[in-house]
Parts: sequence; C-alpha cells; structure tokens
Amino acid sequence: MEFTEQSATDKDGTATTAGTAPGLTTPTDHATPLTEAAIRELGDLLDGRWAELRRHSRTVATDPDLVHVPGLPVPEHRDRVLAALQKLADASEVQRAFPTRMGGEDNPGGNIASFEELVVADPSVQIKAGVQWGLFGAAVLHLGTEHNHEEFLPGIMTLEVPGAFAMTEIGHGSDVASIGTTATYDPETEEFVIHTPFRAAWKDYLGNAALHGVAAVVFAQLISRGVNHGVHAFYVPIRDTTAPKDERGAYPMLPGIQSEDDGVKGGLNGIDNGRLAFDHVRIPRTNLLDRYGQVAPDGEYSSPIASPGRRFFTMLSTLVQGRVSLDGAAAVVSKMALAIAIRYGTERRQFTGADPDVETVLMDYGTHRRRLIPRLARTLAVQFLHNDLLERFHGVFSGEHDTDEDRQDLETLAAAAKSLSTWHALDTLQTAREACGGQGFLAANRLVSLRADMDVYATFEGDNTVLLQLVGKRLLTDYGRSTAQMDVAGQVRWVADRAGDMALHRTPLRRASQSIRDWGSRARSAEELRDPAVQRELLEDRVESMVEEIALRLRASQKGSPVEKAAAFDENQVELIEAARAHGELMQWEAFTGALEAITDPQAKRVMTWLRDVFALTTIEDHMAWYVVNGRLSAQRARTVTSYVERLLKRLRPHLRSIVDSFGYGDEHLRADIATGAEAARQAEAMAYHSQERATGRAPVSEKDTAKGRAKGAGRVGGQRASA
Amino acid sequence: MEFTEQSATDKDGTATTAGTAPGLTTPTDHATPLTEAAIRELGDLLDGRWAELRRHSRTVATDPDLVHVPGLPVPEHRDRVLAALQKLADASEVQRAFPTRMGGEDNPGGNIASFEELVVADPSVQIKAGVQWGLFGAAVLHLGTEHNHEEFLPGIMTLEVPGAFAMTEIGHGSDVASIGTTATYDPETEEFVIHTPFRAAWKDYLGNAALHGVAAVVFAQLISRGVNHGVHAFYVPIRDTTAPKDERGAYPMLPGIQSEDDGVKGGLNGIDNGRLAFDHVRIPRTNLLDRYGQVAPDGEYSSPIASPGRRFFTMLSTLVQGRVSLDGAAAVVSKMALAIAIRYGTERRQFTGADPDVETVLMDYGTHRRRLIPRLARTLAVQFLHNDLLERFHGVFSGEHDTDEDRQDLETLAAAAKSLSTWHALDTLQTAREACGGQGFLAANRLVSLRADMDVYATFEGDNTVLLQLVGKRLLTDYGRSTAQMDVAGQVRWVADRAGDMALHRTPLRRASQSIRDWGSRARSAEELRDPAVQRELLEDRVESMVEEIALRLRASQKGSPVEKAAAFDENQVELIEAARAHGELMQWEAFTGALEAITDPQAKRVMTWLRDVFALTTIEDHMAWYVVNGRLSAQRARTVTSYVERLLKRLRPHLRSIVDSFGYGDEHLRADIATGAEAARQAEAMAYHSQERATGRAPVSEKDTAKGRAKGAGRVGGQRASA
Repeated sequence: MEFTEQSATDKDGTATTAGTAPGLTTPTDHATPLTEAAIRELGDLLDGRWAELRRHSRTVATDPDLVHVPGLPVPEHRDRVLAALQKLADASEVQRAFPTRMGGEDNPGGNIASFEELVVADPSVQIKAGVQWGLFGAAVLHLGTEHNHEEFLPGIMTLEVPGAFAMTEIGHGSDVASIGTTATYDPETEEFVIHTPFRAAWKDYLGNAALHGVAAVVFAQLISRGVNHGVHAFYVPIRDTTAPKDERGAYPMLPGIQSEDDGVKGGLNGIDNGRLAFDHVRIPRTNLLDRYGQVAPDGEYSSPIASPGRRFFTMLSTLVQGRVSLDGAAAVVSKMALAIAIRYGTERRQFTGADPDVETVLMDYGTHRRRLIPRLARTLAVQFLHNDLLERFHGVFSGEHDTDEDRQDLETLAAAAKSLSTWHALDTLQTAREACGGQGFLAANRLVSLRADMDVYATFEGDNTVLLQLVGKRLLTDYGRSTAQMDVAGQVRWVADRAGDMALHRTPLRRASQSIRDWGSRARSAEELRDPAVQRELLEDRVESMVEEIALRLRASQKGSPVEKAAAFDENQVELIEAARAHGELMQWEAFTGALEAITDPQAKRVMTWLRDVFALTTIEDHMAWYVVNGRLSAQRARTVTSYVERLLKRLRPHLRSIVDSFGYGDEHLRADIATGAEAARQAEAMAYHSQERATGRAPVSEKDTAKGRAKGAGRVGGQRASA
Repeated sequence: MEFTEQSATDKDGTATTAGTAPGLTTPTDHATPLTEAAIRELGDLLDGRWAELRRHSRTVATDPDLVHVPGLPVPEHRDRVLAALQKLADASEVQRAFPTRMGGEDNPGGNIASFEELVVADPSVQIKAGVQWGLFGAAVLHLGTEHNHEEFLPGIMTLEVPGAFAMTEIGHGSDVASIGTTATYDPETEEFVIHTPFRAAWKDYLGNAALHGVAAVVFAQLISRGVNHGVHAFYVPIRDTTAPKDERGAYPMLPGIQSEDDGVKGGLNGIDNGRLAFDHVRIPRTNLLDRYGQVAPDGEYSSPIASPGRRFFTMLSTLVQGRVSLDGAAAVVSKMALAIAIRYGTERRQFTGADPDVETVLMDYGTHRRRLIPRLARTLAVQFLHNDLLERFHGVFSGEHDTDEDRQDLETLAAAAKSLSTWHALDTLQTAREACGGQGFLAANRLVSLRADMDVYATFEGDNTVLLQLVGKRLLTDYGRSTAQMDVAGQVRWVADRAGDMALHRTPLRRASQSIRDWGSRARSAEELRDPAVQRELLEDRVESMVEEIALRLRASQKGSPVEKAAAFDENQVELIEAARAHGELMQWEAFTGALEAITDPQAKRVMTWLRDVFALTTIEDHMAWYVVNGRLSAQRARTVTSYVERLLKRLRPHLRSIVDSFGYGDEHLRADIATGAEAARQAEAMAYHSQERATGRAPVSEKDTAKGRAKGAGRVGGQRASA
C-alpha cells in the first residue's frame, strides 16, 4: 500500500488546522496515520453501547449456513433462509427482546444492535428474522397481555410457529387506519369473524405468507355491537400443521383462508412474501391481542386509552423497532459498501498522470474523492444518529424513559433517521458499485446484491416520503405550540419580528452585513466554516425558517374551506418534506458532533472532525441555492465552502483506509473479491512484468518512439486515451 | 378514469399562457385533452425517422420466446436468451447494418432504432444481440476489409458463430490503449501469436465468453519486428466446435485458451459474461482485421493512417454504435418506467383530502407530481437528443456525412448523450419504483428487473464519468481553438473582456441591473422564464462560463512541471465533468426545442412546450446555486423559477396519461400488472362496497362518531394516520 499513500501527500494543508490541536501544527501531521489503538477506539465509538453484542452477531453472520449465495433459485433461497432462521433460533441469537421469564433477556436495545448485524450474512436472513421476531413476535409481545404471551410467544420464539405480520393491504400501505379487513365480534360463539370484504383488502407483501407461515397477526377494524373501534391486532392460525406439506414446503391453508405468492421481487428473494385473504374466518375471543382494547364475552368494548386516535397511535408506536432496526441496517450496509469501494479505490489504477510509466490510483482522482468521501462522512453521521436513536429506543422499551413525550420523540426521530439512512444506503451502494466499474456489477463483489435487497427499505416499514411528511407535521405542531404559548401581545410582537426577519432575508440587508466579513482572507472564511457554532447555525436556521414560512402560509389558509385547506397543504407538501429532511440532517450533524467529544486519540479526533466538517459543508453545498437566495451566505462565501471541502477531501485521502478499517468488517464479512488485496497483487504483477521487460530489453519499441512515428505526430495518443 | 381527471382541474392557470396561443386563452383550455390524432402525432415525433422499423421491432419484442421470465435460474436464462438470438437471426431482424450483398440492408440508423426496442423484451436479449452483431460483428465489419468480411461475416450474421468482443481486460477498462494482451507477428509461420502476459491482462466481462462464444475479436498490442504499433483487432477462434458440448452447453476451449465464468451479475443474467486468456495462441496473419493496419508476410507494417494516435482514435470511433444504442435503450426504458408509474399514479389512491370519503389519487399530491413530471420532461429531452444523435450516426456510417469532424462530433455527442441518459434511466426507474411503493418492488411490475439490467449501462461502453471527461476535454479544445485563432491584440482584448466579465459576476453589478427587472410582477417574470431565448441564454452561459474558468485556470498551470500540471488538472476535474454535463443538458434542451417546431396540433404543441419549460426550469433549479452565486439570477428570480415550475406541474397533471400513451407501449410491452387498470378496478370495487354499506345501513358506526367517542377527543386520528 505504501505507493498509494505516497501519492496522497497533502499539498495545501499548512495553516488551517493551526490553533485547534496544539503541538500538531506542522504540515506533515495531516498525513500521520492513525495508530492501531486509535482505529480500535473509533471502532468502539461506532459500535456504540452494545458493541460486544454487535460484534458477536457480526461473527455469527459469517456462518456458511447463513451467508447469501448469489444466483440461488428462489425456492432454494427461501428454504435456505428458513433453515438459517432455525439455526439462529436454536442458538438463542434472536430472542433478546423477549421477557427473561420466557427465555429472553429483556434487552430491547441489545436485541436490535445484534439483529442489525445479520444483514452482513444476507439481508433476507435479517428481514425474515425481523418478520418473525421483530414484527409477528413483537406484535404479540407489545399489543398482547400475559395470557397472549403465555399462549403464543413460546412457539414464536423457537420458530415452531413461523408467522406473518398481516398489516398492509393491497389497497392500503402507509394509511393503516383505512384498512378494509374486519374483525366482527359474535357474542353467540364468543368469536371474532375475520373477513376480507373486497380485493383491495387482501393483505399483501407479508413475509412468511406465501409458504412458511402457520399463523399471522392480522390487523383489522374491530367491530362489536355495531361500532367500529378502529384497527386492532388478532392472532389467526392460517395453515393446517396437522396435514402434510406440499411440494413447495407449505402446509395447506386452513378453511376460509386464501394465499397468493408475491413471486419474484427486486431483492430479498429468500423471503416468501405473499398475500392472505379471509372469508369469515372465526377465531376465539381471546385471540385479540388485548393490551390496548378488550372485548368482554358479551361484546362490551373497553380500552385503557379513551381516545380512539391516541389509542391507534400508541398501538402503532409499539412497532417502531422495525424502523429503528432498518436505520441501523442501512448504516451497516453503507459501511460495508464504502469499505469495499475504498479498499478497491486505493489499489486500482487507471490512466497515467505526471509519470507516463505509473498509472494513477483511482482515489487520487478528484472525482473519485468527491464521489466517495462525502458519502463516508454522511455514513458516519448516519451511524452516530442511529446510536442515539437506539439509546432512546432502549430507554422507552426498557421502561427507563417511557413517557408519552418520549414515545413521540422516538417516533419522530425514527421516521427522520430511517428515511434519510435508507436512501443514503441506496445512494452509497450505487455510487460504490459505479466507482468499482465492471467489478462492481459482479455478484462476487457484493454491491449489486446488497443494493437489490436494500431497495425496498426505502418504502417498507413506512414509505420514506410519508415518514418525512410525518416529521414535517410534527415540526409544524411544535412550531404551533411554541407560538400558542405566547400571550396576545407576545404574538403580535412575534409576528412583527418574523415579518421584519423575512424582509431581511428577502432584501440584501443581512447579506450586506455578512459581505463585510467576506472581504477577509479565504483562510479566515475557512476558519469560520469549521466552527461548529457556525455550522449549527446554518443548519438550524434552514430548518426553522422553512418550517416558519410553511406554518405562516398554512395559517393564512386556515379560514378557508376544506378544499382550500387541502390545496394549501398540497402546495406546501414538497417544501414540508424538504424541511423534514433538513431537520434529519441537523439531527445527524448533532449526533456526529456529539460523538467527537468522546474521542481521546488526538489524531483520530482531528481526522473525524474533518469528516464532520465534510458532512456539514457538503450538506450546506447541497442546499446552497437556499442559503444564497435567502441571504444566509454571500456568493463569495458560497465559493469558499466548495474550495474548503476540496481541501478537506485531499487532506482525508491518506486516512480513508484507516476509517473503513475501524468499521470492523474484514474479508469474512465483506465477501467481496476486490476488497481482499487481489487488485493490488494484480497491479504489482503487471508492473513487475513491464519493468522486467524494460530492464531486459525485451520490450518492443512503441511506434510513436520510432523515427518514423515521431514524424507522424504521435502526440495525439494521450488525449484520445479516454475515448474507449 | 374520469374521477382522477376531475380532481386535476387547473386552479391557477388564468393569464400565463395568454398571448402565445391565440384562440386558446380561456382557463379551461389548459385541461382540454389531447385528441387521438394529437397523441399519434406525438408518437410519430418521438419514434423519429425509423418509426416504422422501431414499431415493428417493438412488436417482435412481445414474442413469448423473447420476453424476460422473472426468477429463471441463471443457466436457464442463458439458454433462453441464446435461443431468442437464434430466432432473431433466423427472422433477419438483427442484420440490417450489414452489407446488402451479404444479406444485410446497409441501414445503420434503422438497425440501431430497431435494436433499441429489443430492450422491451428483455435487456439480456438486447445486449447479447449487441455483443454478437453490434460489437463482435461490427468490429469485423468496420475494422476488417473485404477478405475478412467474406470469411467471417456469414457465420456471425446467422449466429452459426457466436462470438465475444474481447477488448476490456481485468486491469484496463476505459483505458484501452494500455491493454496488456500482445499479438506478436512471426514471419516464419506467417502467424500472430496472441498472448496474455499477466493476470491483469485477462480479457474480462465479455458476453459469450463463458459459454457460447466459439470465436472472439481480440484487441491486442500489434508487435512486429520489435515495434509495438498499438492496439489492433484480431479474429481468434476460441472453442472447438468439432468436439461435443459439455453439460453447461459449451464446446471445449481450443488449446492455449482459458475461460472463466464471471458468474452472477447485478443484472443481464441471460448473458454468459466471462474471461479469456491466451497462452501463445497462433492465428493466421490474415486474421488481423486489417482496414487500419496491415502486416505483410515479411512483417512490414503499414497503415492508411500515419499517426498512431489518430489511427487508434479512428479504429475506436467505428465502434461508437454501442454508445448510441445504449442511449436509445435508456430512452426506451425511461419511457416504459414512466408509463407504468404514471398509469398507476393516476389510479392509485391513498389518504383522504378535503372529502373524508374519497381518497386522493397519488398524482394529485404535490410530491408525486414533483417526483414524476420533471423526469417525464427529461425523458422527452433524452429521446429527442437521441433522435438527433441517431440521424448523425446514420450520416457518418452511411457515408452521407463522413468527415473527420463529423466523426469527432458524433463521438462527443454520443459520449454526452449516453452518460446523461443512462444515469437518467436509473434515476427514473428508481423513482418510479418508489412511487409505486411495494408494488414497485414486485418483479410482476417490471421496474426492479429493468433497473437491475440497466445498472451496468452507466459503466459499460465507456464509464459515464470517463465519457463526460472526454466531452469536457473536447470543450476545452474547442475553447482553446477559438482563442488561438485570434491575433495578439484580439487576445489581449479578449482577456480584458473576460476579466471584466468575471469581476462583474463576482460583484453584484450584473445582479443589480437584473434586480430592477425583478421588481416587476411575478407573472411578468414567468413570461420571461418561458421565453426560449432566455432559457437558452441561461443554459449556454453556464457551459461557456464554466469551460472558460477551467481553461483559464489550466492555462495558468501550463508552465509548471508535469506534476504541477497533473495536479492542476486534478483540481479542475470535478468541475470539468460538471461542465460536460451542463453541455449535455444544453444539447438536450436544443433537441427538445427543435422538436417542438414540428408539432402541428396546437394543444399538443402547447402541452409539449410546458414540458420543455419544465425540463429547462428544473435543470436551472438543479444548478440554482451556480446561477445565483455567479450573479445570473437574482434571489427574487430564483424563487420565481420554482413557483413557475409548480404551476406548470399542476397544469400538466391532466395530460400525463396522454403523453405516456403517445410512447406507444401497451400492456403487451409493459407487462406490468399495475399498469393494466387493475388498480382502478380494485379501487372501484372498494368504493362501491363502502357506499353500498352506507346505503344499506350495514356499515358500523365509527367509535369516534358515537356520543362516547366524541367526548374522548377523537380529533387526533387524522393527524396520526401517516404514522404507520
């Protein structure tokens, strides 16, 4: 590797870090490699509170019985993943969230941390495990009471009862409240009658529904005594385990239940997703998961939560772990993608630069740095925010911090984090795959299959766009509350302030005052840009201003008809979602900045601070039009952002391998041919061949170096090289 | 469908189009549907010069033997695609580019047009056909002379001889000039010795190499009499067709030749990509494809092109059809993706708006319009630029317009078009897939498998980043020429002008003058933004300014050492590639604008003009930071761009189905369950069920509508609906 590191010597990093790290002010310090201890320290920080469980699970994920086999036909892949789940269940790897009294560990946070690392083996294994224990099992745990637990959890925990989580319908995905399936109570027999009234109400996309599931938690409108009490969950046996399995490995359906196979999908083909429909299927009254709603034998409905709306929200909020764990899995996969692409990018050479005999390492190209390093920085932000989210999740579900407000904050943060991180993972995987060229397209290098599997993370457990709208609405609500608490005089003052402030932003007044500062040196500007207070102000200001503008516009429409109100919301929807995204980015920045404080190794802290700065400044770059149009940054300052980013990318170049090494994913986890050093070996062999040819005089003379060739104007070759 | 159209009534389109289309100035005209004739006219325009061949091929692509079968195991998919190729060859569907005297049609443009539509059947069929006839066969045609044609083309045209195009090596993809394979001439036996000197020189990613290829066109450094004459192409038999096939369907390798299977890929798994290596393999002297380089029996090398650099460029430029056809295939696939997503988006409903009993159609959401309509506009731009490119390609290869300059222009335009269109296709497929939610992830709805197959289009036949760099270098060369032609006084004046201009852009002078105009009404601004001259100026200005700035910076470094020059280039690489992208977008805009002129139906012309405006203005929006920072648009004007785009998106809403219908892809081409009207039928059934329940009084009362429920504060339900 030393040849690649050499070429990355930082050329312009003289003055900019002076003053922040005393004693480390000479230019060469920028390239001082991280020590092994520093890399370990970063690894501990990234792996977070449940580092030990996380690493244990990462090792479990290298089990040859669990890992993804490219090209396996769908039926074999499904069988293989089912067997993998049984192995995990038998080894008690997947039950940590369940009660200790039932063989679990009452450890919600640790359970999610270890679950997330299963994606290393095969995302199908992770998600099928998620269906069984994180959705089907968790629904029984969180929506049921002790009698439900005693009756249903043992079979779920051991996988004796594989099950489906039957919430989504063909006609209703994100809008769960509107599902069509009904559960009508019949006091005569003390049974619920589960029914699918029309095609759009078929349950769809359910893991375990096509083949392996023998029961399901079915969400349906609970109707008793002619009143619809809203969506509740019911435990429904769906397949007859007393009969023999068919040739696909499925038990026959129980009477009144139909199943369809969703068939081949864009990824996750180790999971047997399918549809379910119910024709007046009767289940005992006690199969209602009755923590948040009970029906007495006579049909009298009762609930500990009086408001149907709040009850619905509370029930769904118990299932937030799906989003939390997808957020973490997205972080894991992004780290893997970058470990593969950066390893290859620091070895692979293509085209010559200054020296005609030595080809340039990809990572020494400006474009390659631009493609990979900002995504590395963002991946760290994603991981640190995930660590905060997981702590918060554990707080709520362990009961340590479980107020209504805690649950709402958790819900909002999970929605923001999951949508940003799953889109980021797709973007990172695709960029990594393209950065590896043709190699990136081979399944042997892992990136394409991971991308195919991760695709659906953007729309399941909540469509990302819908989730961001949820975040946006929460921001509006909070904003409304903060203004509602003012007295009338305060409101008048506040509105006047806002009006003045908005005029300020629309005219160049604020810009004018900033432009005075802009006449200072570029180095001075760079100094300011790496000031966390400046970064925070820029990121915060954008969220707050956008929310405020939207709120004021919506407020203006509040006196209109329902149609006008709906139209006003529609006109603000795109910007509301953008505001929610900005909020998520601010949360990522806060988490990254918070994480820096814990780093003790000075060089590690410095390199990670550069990466935090890259995250902050490329985020600001992405939204530069907003900052300039709204007078937050002058044109001159906007240019400084980009040139400072470029400087940071160069400065980070020698440290990239150390950073991805700190992720803790070795060859056995990455399972990518190009991330094993094979490319460096091939390059070395080729270079040795060429230099030996030259040394022994066996190398042919190039036509353009012959007398005849020189006369013919061979100079064009260089310029045309890229033409293939 | 009428209920969806109703809800899209344009609410604010009163004054903005007045004046451009006399007689069509009443507000309701905006929503006047396109007539059948207008839709056909648009279809003709989009299908271009070879519309008839294109439609014929589109029909061929519905042949059940050709279409993609999701989930087929790789070996079966490979067999199926080979059989599909034989069927195409037998029906003379794929030989139109070959000489009439040999059974072809001497129709290069028509050949590509019909080839592009094969992607409708299965991208593997398209690309395997491309390998056989567009690369392997085209190399023999364009790089060989008559004796090569007579000897090799008949077997290639009938598929009796499936072959590989062995250019890329493990160690060298885009940098073809540096490949390691050698072809050393031996005058004793009058043979070339083909040799792979090290592992990095193995040929890789070659379609037909793993199984089906029995010959290959091998690119190698031609060495004779101790001189390396650069890369040439050789026809090399690789498998022994006299021996029986093995169980995989492959003949055994000929002596000295090794093959490896690339295995499973991210897509295109109907093609048997693989590697080849040669251990001193001897072929006759006459197997050199000798149009651009001949070796006499005694080893004397000669070429009609004296300069080795120009010779290399000329040889590679004959293979530009790969890029041209990928550009066209990207357009086809983007159109299919939008036809699927827009059909579904105009039927699918989710969440209620103003009316609590009627759910809102997805396409009536601001975010949905933002996601799909700008991509529809860009797809049209891609198609129109492709039509221009294909005309240009036909001009060169039919000999009608075949100068050096024509070839260089073709090469540059193909590089720009292909990189922008293939990235656009991936972006569009992914957006379409997410816009269709879980349905989008099912193979039955086509989007995921098309995306998987199209992935590699971004890096094969030239890595998109490398291609854009090629375009950027051409822009710099052209710029250098235009300044070089000036006399000294002119240069001085020019530099002074530029300096003044740049100062102007860095200070707010130009902005100040514009800001006077900005105080006019917003309608007035919108008027200006839809003036094609204003759009062109904005797009052109950006390309020219970026190229100029880069050129001036590079010029400043020209006196430095090679290391300094390389560093200067590296520092400008990201921006050069961005300038190339801007150039491509300008070309797309020009093509779109040019195409508008041909439309005779006034309403079609108007709707297409809105779409051109959406393309122009969203492109400007994407680069808004540049426009504002560089003083081309004021902050006020920048806001107008976005609000005008929003207005256009609403105005286009009722016409979306007509536009995608004009693409000419019916159910038989799209083969997507959700694009068949099935969703509308399900919605209708559900709505009928609910209204009948209400009518008959069978519907249960909602808990929140009971006296008890109202007391409990049911108002929260609406706000929380999105929480699942």
